[in-house]
Amino acid sequence: MSHLIEAELSLTGALVAAGLAPASVASAVAAVRADPPAVDLAALARDSVAGGNPVIPLIPLVRAAVAAHDADAAVWVHRGATSQDILDSALMTLSRDVAASVVENLWRAAGALEELARAHRDDPAAARTLTQHAVPTTLGLKAATWLRAITRARHRLADIAAELPAQLGGAGGTLASFVELFGAAAAAGLPAHYAHELGLAAPAAPWHTDRWPVTELGDALAAVIAAVGAFGSDVATMARTEIGEASVEVGGGSSAMPQKQNPVDAVLLRSAALRAPGLAAQLHLAAGLAVDERPDGAWHAEWPVLQELLKLALGATDRAAHLAAGLRLDAPRARANLALTGGLIVSERLGLVLVPLIGKARFDVLIADAAAGADLGELIRALPEASHVDAAALVDPAQYLGLAPQLVDLAVRAAVADGIRP
Amino acid sequence: MSHLIEAELSLTGALVAAGLAPASVASAVAAVRADPPAVDLAALARDSVAGGNPVIPLIPLVRAAVAAHDADAAVWVHRGATSQDILDSALMTLSRDVAASVVENLWRAAGALEELARAHRDDPAAARTLTQHAVPTTLGLKAATWLRAITRARHRLADIAAELPAQLGGAGGTLASFVELFGAAAAAGLPAHYAHELGLAAPAAPWHTDRWPVTELGDALAAVIAAVGAFGSDVATMARTEIGEASVEVGGGSSAMPQKQNPVDAVLLRSAALRAPGLAAQLHLAAGLAVDERPDGAWHAEWPVLQELLKLALGATDRAAHLAAGLRLDAPRARANLALTGGLIVSERLGLVLVPLIGKARFDVLIADAAAGADLGELIRALPEASHVDAAALVDPAQYLGLAPQLVDLAVRAAVADGIRP
Amino acid sequence: MSHLIEAELSLTGALVAAGLAPASVASAVAAVRADPPAVDLAALARDSVAGGNPVIPLIPLVRAAVAAHDADAAVWVHRGATSQDILDSALMTLSRDVAASVVENLWRAAGALEELARAHRDDPAAARTLTQHAVPTTLGLKAATWLRAITRARHRLADIAAELPAQLGGAGGTLASFVELFGAAAAAGLPAHYAHELGLAAPAAPWHTDRWPVTELGDALAAVIAAVGAFGSDVATMARTEIGEASVEVGGGSSAMPQKQNPVDAVLLRSAALRAPGLAAQLHLAAGLAVDERPDGAWHAEWPVLQELLKLALGATDRAAHLAAGLRLDAPRARANLALTGGLIVSERLGLVLVPLIGKARFDVLIADAAAGADLGELIRALPEASHVDAAALVDPAQYLGLAPQLVDLAVRAAVADGIRP
Amino acid sequence: MSHLIEAELSLTGALVAAGLAPASVASAVAAVRADPPAVDLAALARDSVAGGNPVIPLIPLVRAAVAAHDADAAVWVHRGATSQDILDSALMTLSRDVAASVVENLWRAAGALEELARAHRDDPAAARTLTQHAVPTTLGLKAATWLRAITRARHRLADIAAELPAQLGGAGGTLASFVELFGAAAAAGLPAHYAHELGLAAPAAPWHTDRWPVTELGDALAAVIAAVGAFGSDVATMARTEIGEASVEVGGGSSAMPQKQNPVDAVLLRSAALRAPGLAAQLHLAAGLAVDERPDGAWHAEWPVLQELLKLALGATDRAAHLAAGLRLDAPRARANLALTGGLIVSERLGLVLVPLIGKARFDVLIADAAAGADLGELIRALPEASHVDAAALVDPAQYLGLAPQLVDLAVRAAVADGIRP
Repeated sequence: MSHLIEAELSLTGALVAAGLAPASVASAVAAVRADPPAVDLAALARDSVAGGNPVIPLIPLVRAAVAAHDADAAVWVHRGATSQDILDSALMTLSRDVAASVVENLWRAAGALEELARAHRDDPAAARTLTQHAVPTTLGLKAATWLRAITRARHRLADIAAELPAQLGGAGGTLASFVELFGAAAAAGLPAHYAHELGLAAPAAPWHTDRWPVTELGDALAAVIAAVGAFGSDVATMARTEIGEASVEVGGGSSAMPQKQNPVDAVLLRSAALRAPGLAAQLHLAAGLAVDERPDGAWHAEWPVLQELLKLALGATDRAAHLAAGLRLDAPRARANLALTGGLIVSERLGLVLVPLIGKARFDVLIADAAAGADLGELIRALPEASHVDAAALVDPAQYLGLAPQLVDLAVRAAVADGIRP
Repeated sequence: MSHLIEAELSLTGALVAAGLAPASVASAVAAVRADPPAVDLAALARDSVAGGNPVIPLIPLVRAAVAAHDADAAVWVHRGATSQDILDSALMTLSRDVAASVVENLWRAAGALEELARAHRDDPAAARTLTQHAVPTTLGLKAATWLRAITRARHRLADIAAELPAQLGGAGGTLASFVELFGAAAAAGLPAHYAHELGLAAPAAPWHTDRWPVTELGDALAAVIAAVGAFGSDVATMARTEIGEASVEVGGGSSAMPQKQNPVDAVLLRSAALRAPGLAAQLHLAAGLAVDERPDGAWHAEWPVLQELLKLALGATDRAAHLAAGLRLDAPRARANLALTGGLIVSERLGLVLVPLIGKARFDVLIADAAAGADLGELIRALPEASHVDAAALVDPAQYLGLAPQLVDLAVRAAVADGIRP
Repeated sequence: MSHLIEAELSLTGALVAAGLAPASVASAVAAVRADPPAVDLAALARDSVAGGNPVIPLIPLVRAAVAAHDADAAVWVHRGATSQDILDSALMTLSRDVAASVVENLWRAAGALEELARAHRDDPAAARTLTQHAVPTTLGLKAATWLRAITRARHRLADIAAELPAQLGGAGGTLASFVELFGAAAAAGLPAHYAHELGLAAPAAPWHTDRWPVTELGDALAAVIAAVGAFGSDVATMARTEIGEASVEVGGGSSAMPQKQNPVDAVLLRSAALRAPGLAAQLHLAAGLAVDERPDGAWHAEWPVLQELLKLALGATDRAAHLAAGLRLDAPRARANLALTGGLIVSERLGLVLVPLIGKARFDVLIADAAAGADLGELIRALPEASHVDAAALVDPAQYLGLAPQLVDLAVRAAVADGIRP
Repeated sequence: MSHLIEAELSLTGALVAAGLAPASVASAVAAVRADPPAVDLAALARDSVAGGNPVIPLIPLVRAAVAAHDADAAVWVHRGATSQDILDSALMTLSRDVAASVVENLWRAAGALEELARAHRDDPAAARTLTQHAVPTTLGLKAATWLRAITRARHRLADIAAELPAQLGGAGGTLASFVELFGAAAAAGLPAHYAHELGLAAPAAPWHTDRWPVTELGDALAAVIAAVGAFGSDVATMARTEIGEASVEVGGGSSAMPQKQNPVDAVLLRSAALRAPGLAAQLHLAAGLAVDERPDGAWHAEWPVLQELLKLALGATDRAAHLAAGLRLDAPRARANLALTGGLIVSERLGLVLVPLIGKARFDVLIADAAAGADLGELIRALPEASHVDAAALVDPAQYLGLAPQLVDLAVRAAVADGIRP
């Protein structure tokens, strides 16, 4: 609500700044900003239905508040504007403000993840594909991957947040009312004044039916939620009782089972990841059906959806920061898990080393024997062709980490270059 | 399919380029590129189910094709790679190629729209909001708005298409196999060689579970389809029998009604606009559930969806270019429609001019009288307070266009700066 | 909130009804029902985050309220239950109550539409396909089609609302706590007692991870919204300034344009139709990912989505009833529109009659001449082969209505059989 | 394609059956059915674009095929119909046929799951909530839950498949062409003849813009995919290397890691579960925007989406049947997992038994001690107040199964009543 009132007041402020309204009006605007009118939300919601949007019943409230300070100033409220100008502009300032908090949350999450990545740079753990142990990696690389994804999503959101434009087009997107009131030249300059007043980007043109600010913002929010959703999904998996590689500082309790420490943050991140895509899709849908000079439903579908998406992103990134800050990765448990397959987790490496020595057929038998329970090291030591091979080293997951530690370094370096350390 | 084969061959090529495979291998690669193996798609589809992806059964085909030219070269096929490396890279080259065609289609559409915008810069037409006549605008500004939306969407798609990275991480995203085969330094350099060979961007790191290339591409495609969808929606409305402001060169026929000229392109654009958002959402969903080092379903959900989205964008932008090229805007019909409300379409202006002269109450009566059928000009001429007003000019929609023509100029200028004229 | 408290109290009530808790507990339950505890929603929301759901912090509030009446009764609050039992059951009673209101709204809409269908049974109007005039129909058949769609959707919603089950499974869906407390036989009977207490269907088994009640309800709500959405879409089209076949009693005003009568209800119905499908999809998604004995995010995604969908259905059907009650269909305007194509709207009929007489080639020329402006009646009268044909009757849209009036009768008869007249 | 041809031929057949076309036409129809015309799909696709649907270019092919057998019969092809009649009817027969296969696949899956449920009725396993061990359940109850979900989804699909109606309304849904050709009474009876010919339900009225057959079918398909998706999700979790409670007969191989047995079926089921909801949503969206007498894009969006959903359901249920048939549940491993928490998995039970004896505070200490590693049995035996308690039995997960086995019996009994045993 405060964003809607601010959008109205800023228009009046812009008229003053442009020299179109008397300078004296500024003090009434300032006074109402300092003490905005109380709004009966239930009444406003009821009155919004008739006109299809909340701006129409809001105007008299703002006008009365301004008039209370300066009766002559009231005429400058909503002067020349259409309700979409106010509503879109308010959505943009709301979006900008929420995006700033989301970005801040992502910085917090990134800071914690960068520490985890460094701390566990070399701690071996199973890389899993299609749920199965594949090859070794490190716990640090898992954290570094979360960090990378979150960093890219943060950049994208910050970029679009800085581009969000004010809306000012008048009833049909032609600024005709402003031309009528102030002349063409003044009307042409007014959107930039309005944007300046709101702290938004100046629009290249009215965007009543060209909804890129809404869809690009929605996409960026969905990308943020996907990034923290994948982080949460990994933690939820790693926190499973049988896996135990991740634990959370303050787990959620249970109403029936006192022993449980539920990874609630991770679960809520997954929940957000299930919801966000459908919301962002509704914004694209609305954009693609934005007919006429103000659409017949598509515009109205945007408000609740974008607001829900903003709330979801705000909550999810706060949960992500909280989860990252309290996350403990368990290196000994990860090592124990790595041992579960008796060395078979490095069978890719074994193939690279042994197939040239003993051929594919005998290698397959050896793997099958190991899978059936035979000791892999002994099987290798029993191969005359492999007598020069250090079997213990060959089957040690910790010695088949590839570039995992170096990839951690790269991610950390990128984070530092990005400004993660003040 | 050809993109998958090319992704395999390029890996072998990259090994040669990096000095890791013998230079002699290059000629076998070149020979297979020139004459790729025939693939039995039905058999490949069947064999893909067992492994969950088509790369596994494709490898022996490519290996055999290479071996047919150089038996020793076959060992360098798929050397060190995992199937996701190949599949993701092939998706990226496919996406890049389709995106180039989509961009080309958007240029075509933009060229035609820019001409329409200029030609109809000053032709008055009704701006409509919530389906009702609101204030006048011009046909040219309608076209300019379509042009702007399409231009922004094109830029976004072109930008992300240029960023699409190759994928090379090996089985667990650590490049361990490449380290085993070639050492850490060579492995670290290999992704860039692979990207160069494919004509893709070098990846900052393996992105097996950090799916920004897929979601950012998907978002850009959805934005393209929304832009042409809104264009199609407007044309579909304007082509309605009762409105008739738009007609299409080659309309679609009907199986039963010989007189009909259906705006089929516009209808298909709307159809695409209904489908694209849900597809792009599935990509965000997959990204947010990308667990482990290769997900347990989320990765598999991406391929058909991204391919469908690419096809949809390709078809829709081709339709949009075709629609724009054959689109006729009917200025006389637009003027006739403007007259339907007997001047009430400029009631916003009347309010700005007359309320200060006769007050709000009398103005409301005047508008009500006009809405009931009275002649607006006569009503105004009958007002003593408005004796100095040129009633005919005041109620002429063509004299209340605001900045519509200037907004056309701005859009055209932006298009020219953008390179729309070679 | 009241549904959550009721779900807790009903469990205690069920324990009494089953003879498991002392009869004396019933009066404490009744007392709390009559005077439920005040809940600080902000505090509850805050406390819900830790446990991931609002039931955990609610239990002590309910327990304290019961204890205030009967200290010994408090132990019977939440006895043996898990938070999902309470939350799912509360969602079901909430859904049942909202569904009843939605059904009532649909009856209201249907009543008005049935009157419109009868009143305009024979009023000719253009049937439009792909935005173009196709053949004649009647205004009544348009209304009858809306009526049919709404009726089917209402049945479907009422059917599933009557099937919504209580949830009672305990922590893992085995009712183990109830078995421990009361023995197997009593535990097996308890869900039916609980369902009876709540006025819900008895569950065949715990459905903690078998989410059919949620998805089938969601589908039915989406179907309702689609039915009223299509109604709204048609009205929005028919209310267009140029078409004018529909007008609304109390249109929405405009902040800038005093003459406008916006079809706000219709626009809001379209907005709902754009949003509902994505919401229902999120429910199916959650159902498909319902792992373990309580999912790791999918369950949490359901609550806000189902609640939003219920709100949307409630609002949309109220709008639909309001729109239908005030809707005026304009028969003269519909006739005028029919005349726009100079008779070409019956060209299907002309083909059926004339092609056998003059052949396809000459017929095509005749239609082309008419499309170019020639008078269709005269063209026909000039055909020697058609001298026996009553040209005026042949080209009269009102004489090519097919079964439109009879289809109205069928729909009306079905509505009456359905109980639309009390 | 064959369904489209059949829909055309059935219309002609219906005209014969209704006595409107000469009986001699039947043999030409039968001859074309036996030897349908070859269709150049690429050419047809190309020609479909102009008219916006494939029926228009298909008509001459069918007409020619009929004419080749009986020149006089050709006039009865597509007689009076509109392309939507044919296309919708063909979609319905296609849907009915695919639904029958999906139902058959679900029977296969159910048969295997019922065996698993019975075989593992009493095998204790961990019930997991929010990824953590909660209380014990049985492997059999897990299987029984999958069985229940699949059974309900199958019923729903079979029910709607039996209701799918033929479409016959002519160009504007009034059957005017049929009235013109055959009179009102014959026209009114024709849809039932057509439905009979196609083996579909007789429509209550044309449903060109009342899309319940499409959305209800889509919802049922989405429900089927959700049911098998949840099954697949559980198996994917239980097949994790660390959990190991489920293994699949023929696992998917890996291109790089010879030891892996990927649960590919389960992974593909999850992939389907991620995709289906968005597809079903597009159908609701199209239904809610079904304006006019044939929509301006919404109808066109349905075909590819419904076909994709049918394919997805067919593939997913085949995978589910295959997965169920080869699924092995590992009772010893499940028992070993149950032991991981040292008895804490029954802490709910411990609370019910011990809190009354020692109070909540001392109980919490006891649980905390056990969570820190102390032996739970010894802790209990050390309690003087619990001297009468059989500590070993109390902490044995196998003795806290609640009604799990009985719930298996209920599900099996329901399946048998349903006809799972012939």
